[in-house]
Amino acid sequence: MPHQYQYPLMLSASGIITITTDFGYRDPFVATMKGRILDRFPNARIVDMTHGISSYWPAEAGFWLSRAYRYFSAGTVHIAVVDPGVGTARGIVGVQADEHLFLAPDNGLLSQVVSRAQAPVVHRLDLEHARQRFGLSEPSSTFHGRDIFAPIAAELAAGRAHLADIGPVTGTLHDGPRAEPEVSPGLIIGIVITIDHFGNLITNIDEQLIRSLSHPVVEIGGREVILRRTYGDVRAGELLALINSFGVLEIAAAERNAAALLGLDRGARVRVIDT
Amino acid sequence: MPHQYQYPLMLSASGIITITTDFGYRDPFVATMKGRILDRFPNARIVDMTHGISSYWPAEAGFWLSRAYRYFSAGTVHIAVVDPGVGTARGIVGVQADEHLFLAPDNGLLSQVVSRAQAPVVHRLDLEHARQRFGLSEPSSTFHGRDIFAPIAAELAAGRAHLADIGPVTGTLHDGPRAEPEVSPGLIIGIVITIDHFGNLITNIDEQLIRSLSHPVVEIGGREVILRRTYGDVRAGELLALINSFGVLEIAAAERNAAALLGLDRGARVRVIDT
Amino acid sequence: MPHQYQYPLMLSASGIITITTDFGYRDPFVATMKGRILDRFPNARIVDMTHGISSYWPAEAGFWLSRAYRYFSAGTVHIAVVDPGVGTARGIVGVQADEHLFLAPDNGLLSQVVSRAQAPVVHRLDLEHARQRFGLSEPSSTFHGRDIFAPIAAELAAGRAHLADIGPVTGTLHDGPRAEPEVSPGLIIGIVITIDHFGNLITNIDEQLIRSLSHPVVEIGGREVILRRTYGDVRAGELLALINSFGVLEIAAAERNAAALLGLDRGARVRVIDT
Repeated sequence: MPHQYQYPLMLSASGIITITTDFGYRDPFVATMKGRILDRFPNARIVDMTHGISSYWPAEAGFWLSRAYRYFSAGTVHIAVVDPGVGTARGIVGVQADEHLFLAPDNGLLSQVVSRAQAPVVHRLDLEHARQRFGLSEPSSTFHGRDIFAPIAAELAAGRAHLADIGPVTGTLHDGPRAEPEVSPGLIIGIVITIDHFGNLITNIDEQLIRSLSHPVVEIGGREVILRRTYGDVRAGELLALINSFGVLEIAAAERNAAALLGLDRGARVRVIDT
Repeated sequence: MPHQYQYPLMLSASGIITITTDFGYRDPFVATMKGRILDRFPNARIVDMTHGISSYWPAEAGFWLSRAYRYFSAGTVHIAVVDPGVGTARGIVGVQADEHLFLAPDNGLLSQVVSRAQAPVVHRLDLEHARQRFGLSEPSSTFHGRDIFAPIAAELAAGRAHLADIGPVTGTLHDGPRAEPEVSPGLIIGIVITIDHFGNLITNIDEQLIRSLSHPVVEIGGREVILRRTYGDVRAGELLALINSFGVLEIAAAERNAAALLGLDRGARVRVIDT
Repeated sequence: MPHQYQYPLMLSASGIITITTDFGYRDPFVATMKGRILDRFPNARIVDMTHGISSYWPAEAGFWLSRAYRYFSAGTVHIAVVDPGVGTARGIVGVQADEHLFLAPDNGLLSQVVSRAQAPVVHRLDLEHARQRFGLSEPSSTFHGRDIFAPIAAELAAGRAHLADIGPVTGTLHDGPRAEPEVSPGLIIGIVITIDHFGNLITNIDEQLIRSLSHPVVEIGGREVILRRTYGDVRAGELLALINSFGVLEIAAAERNAAALLGLDRGARVRVIDT
């Protein structure tokens, strides 16, 4: 009996869809995506991953998505729409990685997901093919999240389609801005990839990199910061570095806003030196 | 066999309820509405349309609702609460339009929904009648969203009630602030009805009006702006006009905040001239 | 036949979980809690109570939770995570009160729930016991909301566990900052416990206290404010006091931001005098 799909793992859909965007919370953009999803798959459970991504910075979306998806059930579909190139020739990709499915514009957003996953498979959306396969009407030029991503995610999450239905496997993925740290012996140079609601500076430096050093010292904004276990290990207002709950290096100030305290923003350079 | 209700279309409830408010995201107001809904209809699927409507501006809520509801399944119930007159003599209305149901204060919020729909039917809430019919306890004076709209929406969405159960059909609907553009030969004068998260200026001028002109030129804030297809059609920072994904004229700046760039806010005048 | 649990009331789980945090809306922290919940209990209905609590102020979370939970069905599980002491020796408590279940850090957050409830029962989490009982992996040091509260809430909401499964009943609950007003004959002194999205100043003074006075007059920021029924009872811009829809004293300005108008913030003193 022939196999129609040759996947590393045949996914069983969880029925869950997450949505990550830079749309903010002011407008009904995300709501209309949910409307389109529920119209095709009324039992979808939809979770807002975040809509607070900095406008037009796909790397931040990719950072969070690559660190957060594993807290969802296998078989979950993750939509990410940070898409300044919407309506131009930029492509759309679908990725299967670690039993999760991802849909995003091909602008580097998914590079951190792909680089961390075991045996990821990347498909390139063939829009004409997919429109016919999924019965999509003519998409708008400016909101593919609602007109393309949402209905396809609904079909995938309902278990009625596979990534192969969106288009062929591709070997190439747009790289996007460099989101990985530079590593040399005794030195890691990373960046602040996002700043959270509390003003904590979250870097792109993974725990394993830090663990490879004997006596790591963190430098940021001209200051040395000591590695601690949790916020309460220092007094209110004091700076600390820690491996945060997503497994990356974070610079924080206990009960204060470290970003404001240090006057630093996304993109700021962080060095970890072995002493 | 007599028909109890004489509707343009007998609706089959989708089980979906959307909520549009000016409550923001700081307080548990919307949450308590959801609590009341789920208590009566545990299988409701509730979607936050937006809670970012400008305080006390029903026209913005009506704009978004009238352009967004069609992305939801037929038989969906839409609650809208922008309600500075709560607890005064202002009425509450229910509308059936294009196979969707709407509940809102009678302050003009639903005028754009009604004016765009085919054969809309408007009911006026008879509070005493509805309290008895739905077993509502004494409502607070300041939060009808939770005490009146939520439980009634739950009953409608569960398919256990019809709009006729809230009160009689009415021919009058409060007009509210003028939300439609002025049209004369070769000239359309509209306003910026909302500004989205990206700073795009979204107008109340529908695509069909623009299409009626041979060579439309957009004027806003003393500048002429060229109509394009999508944001990526101009260089980052450049102004453009486009028909956006909700079918209305929008003035944007590629990867920038057009509202800040032009120094304009809601209510700003937009002219489209046939040249 | 022996009873395994001696509860004031054997709860029937509603399947609903609410989440209250100071995490804001910028990051995927809450989303990963939902991912953990849905992984254990796919049919959970999860409601965001609010994520807009002031960072590190558990009293505000406790205020809202204690006033909002009764709008949810009996048998609902309420998670609250305002937790500056995460990863330190601070405990975690579970409370059953009025047929609702609550999980929170033992930092005073739940004192308002407990002080208002009839026959509340408080359990202290025994982490090692609970990890084994619920099969929890090693929690991070900084995000117990995701690693401890979410999976336990899922088990409680699914009806597969009782509070007794998290640890023994305790007689002590951390008090936290004083959140109750001072009452003497003819005088109530309270504070502004939260400011809502509209700038309304919401106090910790309950309706019953006000009703105990013959001619209550409200004083705040050196001004006397008259008690009214609803916002529309005064002209736009005028100050008023009212018993709001959560049954507490509120100082507002019709269609204006009272906090900005009065230049007051959380913690401001409010006096109600019998005249």
